[in-house]
Amino acid sequence: MIHVLLKDKKVVLASASPRRMEIFKLVGLNVVQIPANISEDQVFANPIKLVQYHARNKVLEVKKRFENDHLIVAADTIVYHNGEVMEKPQDRMQAAEYLTRLSDSFHYVYTGVAIAYKNQLITDYAKSRVEFYPLSAREIEEYIKTKEPMDKAGAYGIQGYGSQFIKKISGCYFNVMGFPVSLFYRMVGKII
Amino acid sequence: MIHVLLKDKKVVLASASPRRMEIFKLVGLNVVQIPANISEDQVFANPIKLVQYHARNKVLEVKKRFENDHLIVAADTIVYHNGEVMEKPQDRMQAAEYLTRLSDSFHYVYTGVAIAYKNQLITDYAKSRVEFYPLSAREIEEYIKTKEPMDKAGAYGIQGYGSQFIKKISGCYFNVMGFPVSLFYRMVGKII
Repeated sequence: MIHVLLKDKKVVLASASPRRMEIFKLVGLNVVQIPANISEDQVFANPIKLVQYHARNKVLEVKKRFENDHLIVAADTIVYHNGEVMEKPQDRMQAAEYLTRLSDSFHYVYTGVAIAYKNQLITDYAKSRVEFYPLSAREIEEYIKTKEPMDKAGAYGIQGYGSQFIKKISGCYFNVMGFPVSLFYRMVGKII
Repeated sequence: MIHVLLKDKKVVLASASPRRMEIFKLVGLNVVQIPANISEDQVFANPIKLVQYHARNKVLEVKKRFENDHLIVAADTIVYHNGEVMEKPQDRMQAAEYLTRLSDSFHYVYTGVAIAYKNQLITDYAKSRVEFYPLSAREIEEYIKTKEPMDKAGAYGIQGYGSQFIKKISGCYFNVMGFPVSLFYRMVGKII
């Protein structure tokens, strides 16, 4: 298990996300959290390439600040709906627009994960399918009032108020929350 | 949304489960938690009947202690693997046996939900499919050492260390955690 594999390792999470930090705690890991300072341009239309590219850049930026024996991990999550990438909404209007599009429909969530350890760097990704119930204009308004959508890709959080809107998921739940923990466990097994 | 629908209602959760309480907090609900005092005999072989029967009994037992205007909610969760019901393991040996059977295989999780409000009582259920990675004897031993399996149906918790073992889920994640929150939201819309 991860907490056994990483028992004596120094682990750095290159992310500002409180949800990712929470997932690390769930599996018994104490990590240092250092947000990476990179731009998240949409340099690829392909979501699989895009999320791994961003995760890799985050890891590389943070790795420079630590000794080589630190294990650095980063992730990047996007919502992908009808061929279009949804990142964090810029304002309440864009949040309402995203939620209206996700309503009564399905989308995919992709998370790229990158790990650097000593002289190795590996990346991989997880993909989950998420189906939303139909949302009324009133529900969307109520949801935006909770402020939960504003800092999340696709303008929803599956682990909070947003849970009520989810009809079904297929794949990894923690990927949708922002960090696919079972993928990370398998990647750690390869790199250390 | 639930916190709007139930804003001025007195809600009682007829369950001792800290995980269910946590899910209520995630969606902004403050509820009173009162464990029901019932026996959970396996009176039905059919998991759909079984979980709803238990949930109904829990609600009825707790309802007696409150005024009619309280909304009482209860749930019952089981793991169903190869036609057999797995409840909480009785000891570490049974936990290891359950986990060995769940390894490299899939199972279903059923949660029955019952709500009583005024003179109405409704029940419904959620079903999710969960697929496990192959687990080594060492992983099972490490997992049992965390003590997480002991108070959980099927001897695992999807929201903790157990998350590392999950290859895929199909359906409602919160059902697997013990309370299908989007089903509850829909049921509340019918009863109040």
